[in-house]
Parts: sequence; structure tokens; C-alpha cells
Amino acid sequence: MYDLIMKKRDGGTLSTGEIEFFVREYTRGRIPDAQAAALLMAVYFRGLDPRETADLTLAIASSGQRPAPPGAGPWADKHSTGGVGDKTTLVVVPLVAAAGVPVLKMAGRSLGHTGGTIDKLESIPGFDTGLSLQTALRQVREVGAALVGHTPELAPADAKLYSLRDLTATVDSLPLIAASIMGKKLATGARALVLDVKTGRGALMTSPEEAVALARLMVGIGTRAGVATAALVTDMDQPLGRAVGNALEVREAITTLHGAGPPDLTELALRLGGHLLFLAGAVPDPEAGFGKLSRLLRKGAGLAKLRQIVAAQGGDLRVVDEPDRLPQGAVSQTVCARESGWLAVLDARKAGEAALLLGAGRTVPGVPVDPGAGIVLHKKVGDPVRAGEALATLYAATQAAAAAGAARLEEGVAIAPVPPPSRPLIHTVVGA
Amino acid sequence: MYDLIMKKRDGGTLSTGEIEFFVREYTRGRIPDAQAAALLMAVYFRGLDPRETADLTLAIASSGQRPAPPGAGPWADKHSTGGVGDKTTLVVVPLVAAAGVPVLKMAGRSLGHTGGTIDKLESIPGFDTGLSLQTALRQVREVGAALVGHTPELAPADAKLYSLRDLTATVDSLPLIAASIMGKKLATGARALVLDVKTGRGALMTSPEEAVALARLMVGIGTRAGVATAALVTDMDQPLGRAVGNALEVREAITTLHGAGPPDLTELALRLGGHLLFLAGAVPDPEAGFGKLSRLLRKGAGLAKLRQIVAAQGGDLRVVDEPDRLPQGAVSQTVCARESGWLAVLDARKAGEAALLLGAGRTVPGVPVDPGAGIVLHKKVGDPVRAGEALATLYAATQAAAAAGAARLEEGVAIAPVPPPSRPLIHTVVGA
Repeated sequence: MYDLIMKKRDGGTLSTGEIEFFVREYTRGRIPDAQAAALLMAVYFRGLDPRETADLTLAIASSGQRPAPPGAGPWADKHSTGGVGDKTTLVVVPLVAAAGVPVLKMAGRSLGHTGGTIDKLESIPGFDTGLSLQTALRQVREVGAALVGHTPELAPADAKLYSLRDLTATVDSLPLIAASIMGKKLATGARALVLDVKTGRGALMTSPEEAVALARLMVGIGTRAGVATAALVTDMDQPLGRAVGNALEVREAITTLHGAGPPDLTELALRLGGHLLFLAGAVPDPEAGFGKLSRLLRKGAGLAKLRQIVAAQGGDLRVVDEPDRLPQGAVSQTVCARESGWLAVLDARKAGEAALLLGAGRTVPGVPVDPGAGIVLHKKVGDPVRAGEALATLYAATQAAAAAGAARLEEGVAIAPVPPPSRPLIHTVVGA
Repeated sequence: MYDLIMKKRDGGTLSTGEIEFFVREYTRGRIPDAQAAALLMAVYFRGLDPRETADLTLAIASSGQRPAPPGAGPWADKHSTGGVGDKTTLVVVPLVAAAGVPVLKMAGRSLGHTGGTIDKLESIPGFDTGLSLQTALRQVREVGAALVGHTPELAPADAKLYSLRDLTATVDSLPLIAASIMGKKLATGARALVLDVKTGRGALMTSPEEAVALARLMVGIGTRAGVATAALVTDMDQPLGRAVGNALEVREAITTLHGAGPPDLTELALRLGGHLLFLAGAVPDPEAGFGKLSRLLRKGAGLAKLRQIVAAQGGDLRVVDEPDRLPQGAVSQTVCARESGWLAVLDARKAGEAALLLGAGRTVPGVPVDPGAGIVLHKKVGDPVRAGEALATLYAATQAAAAAGAARLEEGVAIAPVPPPSRPLIHTVVGA
């Protein structure tokens, strides 16, 4: 291990065998954290070339069980690098499953502005995200989709490496990010994978160039591993949709499956899902996938599939038809426009920080999130506003939290005397 | 701690408070090894500026006890960055003490070609290097000098940090090397310090430029901390003197104190000691110190002082008068010149590796060294040699070890048809 650290420290290239050795032995607890941390910091400075990154990804993917595909045909998966108000998974998974392509979606409880997809789903009373791998696979075969937390059987190296990176300031490394995401994805055995790589103020990759670089790296890894992979680089300069928070986002996703969702969320979900249908071989091109999912959405097929998923995972089915049953913070506060003009900036990062202050997120692992806390946006960037008009309503458990969230959200608001230039929802598509 | 790692990772400068926090909390076990390793690797890449290096040094020096000076007047100390056949300490310490300047010399059991000064001293039967700090200080007051191992009371942060660096390939960092050496030295409370920074094939710093940079860094730290400090950058291209090994080097040091030592060792010891007398205020300039120690050497005052030190530390006094009583490997082998000419290269690194193969050193902490193993050189660089003439005699416990050592030593020998250009013994002096 010492030799590996020194080799990378001095700018050398690690062999496939060396990378396999590191991941295997570290996962088994035979390499001390200190040596692994030194190697990760050396990687932070020296990088990994595409072959090393692919090797690291495959070693992570192989560090635990590799489930066999569920009967005939490929199964699909979707991943987002994370953004504020990003509830796309809750719309894409039921729609794609409704189109006949099975989806096994594993998600996390990330730290930050709101909970992860798993926390969001748990705001549905009774919904069980802790299925075993076997149970989840059976549900995919029977229902067409499952939405579950990461199981310890799959890619255990990733959780161990991620904890260490989180402790040692080695998270922000492109090849380590790519290997972590793709290692988990390749472990599930999906044959088609669509990646949503966010860019903008609220994204890990703030510039489109960085986002495209990450997208290319991950698409390359997936393709080389035999998984049909594409990435959409999409906008995260303002929050996606109108809701930020756990139950609030679930409600918005259900509303979207009812056909009444905000245009940006609806379009992004249909585009991501359309690509996924194409990658899975169900349609001749992404455009045809988009059209197919649009029709299924209008027919309520996505909603019907969500109902099946919620039923299979023990959730309260009434929320699918009456989303107002979902929890909502007892205290609310409104943020109003200080002047008239056009909403020019609604900083996604500030909105995320506001959601955290409201109680929707966590900064320490294991702490529960407040499902009812969050933000509902009444205006989006480009909308005309009048002085005194409500821009957003914030929900929290206490007046103090609501006030702190409102102050933070306001820091990210700018109103201009002319309409702002428009930003595309989808910046570019990499692969497929 | 996370913020410190990120700051250094991104090229920032750590404040005095941040460096104190890191050293204090890491020494107390409140910072995980993984975070400390990540910071050290970030320092490896980003470096430390002179102020940060001085702060790290002082934090290491302050991490344990700080003994008070022994009565009136300053006390002196000496450090070498390490070389092959470097037994200078065993000559300098008795001579300087004989000149009336007390010396508390703490040394180690380093890994590598031969043992450290402590291992060498332990080849004197009965010699106790494990004195407590209190006992060592009393001996300095009563006898004028003590030669002891590092005590855990002084600068405990250094041992902890060094173990971690040794595990994580972060040893080769100039500021970390300087802070480690000077942290230990400043902890002893010496008021005068001479540093012997080696350069050449057998040194940590192979080029004179690197050696001068390290010397400047350390002299700067010492001076700023109020310690009169100077560094001699000295040659380590071939071994120093004629003996390499533990008991063999003690024997050569005693011979030198008898006035019959090899010219390079004798001169270097008198120069280092002369500087130390000057730094301690005992003579008006280093040249006067050289002269004073030369006279003391001729009068046998160094030998008398060594006798006192050996007696105080329980060693067998007979070896001082009869150094042939010291152990010597049962098996010997001679390396002879393959051609006639001038000895052009006698690679100190190869000689060190040969000594290790002979059994004189260790590669794993705690393993005992063979006191009788080692090399006696019959020729030095620049000497004329005839084909078949003995260049060196090697001593070991087994024939196999002797053969392995001889083969390695030969790899470092070159004979030229013309005399080689001469290298200076002392390349330059930094400070004082």
C-alpha cells in the first residue's frame, strides 16, 4: 500500500491489479484509514486517468454482491448528481415502469439542503424503503419498479470510501465522484442508465464545462462496462419545479403524475425517461421515448404505477389521490418582492440553505429530517413580479426556523428592470 | 479539522492557531489518523511557508515537557540528518563537554543501513541509553554530557506524526522534515545547536542545493526561536571515516578520541564542535573553537570525558582503552580492486545497503541490530589502488550475509584511470 501511495503521489499510474488490491483490502479492513486517506489526497492532486477511473469503478462495483437481471429484458436505472427541488426520480421511475421497462432504483439519504430520495419517500406514511435486495428484486419482477435505500450487499466499498472522503476533504475529485456514482450503479446490474448531471449555482458542478467533463467520464465508464449510458447536463441555477422539501416534493411529484406539474419538472422527467426507454431498447430514439411517456402521463399510467409501488412498499395509498394528506410545517412565512420588475435570480444554493434552516435537511448523518418543512415557490426566474407580491411560502415547525429560512432565501433573490436572459433546461446530452 | 485540510488542499495558509490546534488535538488522540494523513499529504503537495513551518516546529516542541536549563550557562546540542558511517556525535559530544559546554544529546534508533546513535552506543556492554529525563539532566550537570534515547516526555507529537508519515509516504517533505528535527531539538531546551546536513549519494538530500535549502529552513527556525543555530552542509557521497556498522563505528570514534582517527572524521568533528563552542559563547569564533578542541583532543581530554560518560551510564570502561573488546562479526570477507587506478566512486548508499545486508541495520522497528556487523574501508575515494588490492573488509554473522554485503558494496565501487576530482568535506556553512 505504501508503494501505491508513493506511486500516485509522484504522478504515476496505478495498474488494474493495484487498484483492485486497494479496494478489496480496504473494504476488508486490512488497510488502515490513514493510508487510504493519503492515497485519496494524492489522487485529489494527481487525478486518475480514464483507465484508472474505470478500474476503480469496477472494483467498487465488484466489492459486494452482483444481482442477476430479473428475467427477460434489461432493467433500467437513473441517477442525478443532486439539486435543489430535484424530485425527478419520483416521476421518471413510475412512468418508465409503466412503459414496460423495469427499474430498480437505489437511492440515499444525503446530507445537505433536503433529505435524499429515501427521506422524501418516507414522508409517505408507512412507505418502507428498507427492503432487502431479494425483496426489491422480486418487486421489480412483479410490479416493474422498486424505490429502495442502498443495501449493504451492493458495492460496500463505496460507502466506506465515501465516509473517508467526507472526513478528509477529498470529495471534490472528478474521478472519485465518477467512480463512486458509477460503482454503485454498475453493481445493481442495470443494462440501461440515464444520468442527470446538474450544473449551475445549486449544483456540485457549477459550470457547464465541469458538468460536461463529469458526464463524459461517467458515460465512458458505463459504456465500457457494457451498460447503455447517456447523460443529460441540466440546469440547477434555480430550484427545479416549485417545491423544495421532503413531503412538499413528493406532493409535487404526485401532482406532476396527475398531469398538473410545473413545466420544467414535467419536461425534464419526460426527457430523462425518454432517453432511458431508448437506452433500454424500448423505442427507436429518445424523441419517441419522450412521446410515449407523454401519452402514458396523460392517460394516468404513471400515477397508476406509483400507486402499485406505494402499495407494494406498504405506503398509505390515500396520499396518491389526496396529496394534501402529506405533512406540512405548522408555521408558514411568505417572502415578498421588494420591488417590481422581473425575477432575475432565484439562487438554488441559497434556496437549498434556506430549506436546511427550515428543517428539511440534515448536516449530521442519522438525524431525522422534518418532512413538512420546505419552500413553495410562487414565481420562477423570468416571471414578472410586482413590489409586495409573494415570491415564496416557507414552511417550518417553528417561527424561528421560518424566519431564518426566509432571510436566507431572500439573499438569493434578485429582481431586474428587464427580463433576464433565459437559461436552457437541458444544456447538452452526452452519449446516446 | 476538515476546514484545515480543505484550506491546505486549496493552497491556503494555516494560521498559528490552526497549526497549534492540529498538533495538540492529534497528539491527544482527538483527530483521527485519516484526517491527519490527508492534511500531511496536502502539505506534501502545497508545502508550508516559513511561518507555518516555524509554527509547526514550536507546536511539536511544546507538545510535551520543556526541561529548564541546567544551572548557569547555555547547553548545547548537535544533530545530523544521517549518513553512512556517521559516528561524529560520539566524538563531538565528549570534546565539547571537555571544553566546558554541557551537552544533552538525544538520539534515535533509526531504520536503515545501520542502527542510530543509540544502537551504536549499546554495543558498549552495559551502556544504558534509557535514562529518564531527570537522570539525564542530573548527569549533564554533574558530568557535562549525556547520550540518551528520545524520552516520551519530550515532543511526543513528533513520534506520533513521524509514524503516520512513515505509513503514508509523506516523509519526503522539506518543511515536515525540518519541523520534525527542530521540534525535537527545541524541546530539549538547548541554547546552542549545530546541524550537520549531509549531501551526496548516501544522504536524504542528494543535491547540495536541497541540503542548503533544508539547512536554511532549520537555521531560520532555530534562530527565530532564540536558539543560536548554525548548519554545516557536509559530504556524504562516500561513507564518513573508515568504519560502517555499530560496534565498528564506536571503535573508530574511540580511536579518533585517542588522536588516531581518519582525517575526514577528525576534521568534521572538530569543525562541528568548534561551531558549537562559538554558538554557545565559549569562544569568539568557530576557528577558535576548532583550535581549542584540537588542543583538547591532543591532550586526551575528549577521551577522559568519554570515560566519565561511559562510567555514568554504566558502560564497560575497558572498551575505552581497549576498543578491540567491542564485538566484531565472526565471518569476514574482503572486497578487492578488479583493476588498477584510482578509487573514483565508493557509493555511500550502496555501502549503507551493504551494511544492512550484513546485519548492521533494521527495516522493521524494534528488531535488534547485529552490533558486530559492518564494513571497514581500506581505501577512500582518491586513493590509488592496484588490481587485487583489498578495498574493504566486511564483517557479519554468516557467510551468506557477508557475501550479500560484498556484492552490494561492489556495485558502488568504480576505479578510474585518473584521479577523480576532489569533493569538499564541508560544502558550505549556513548561519553563524
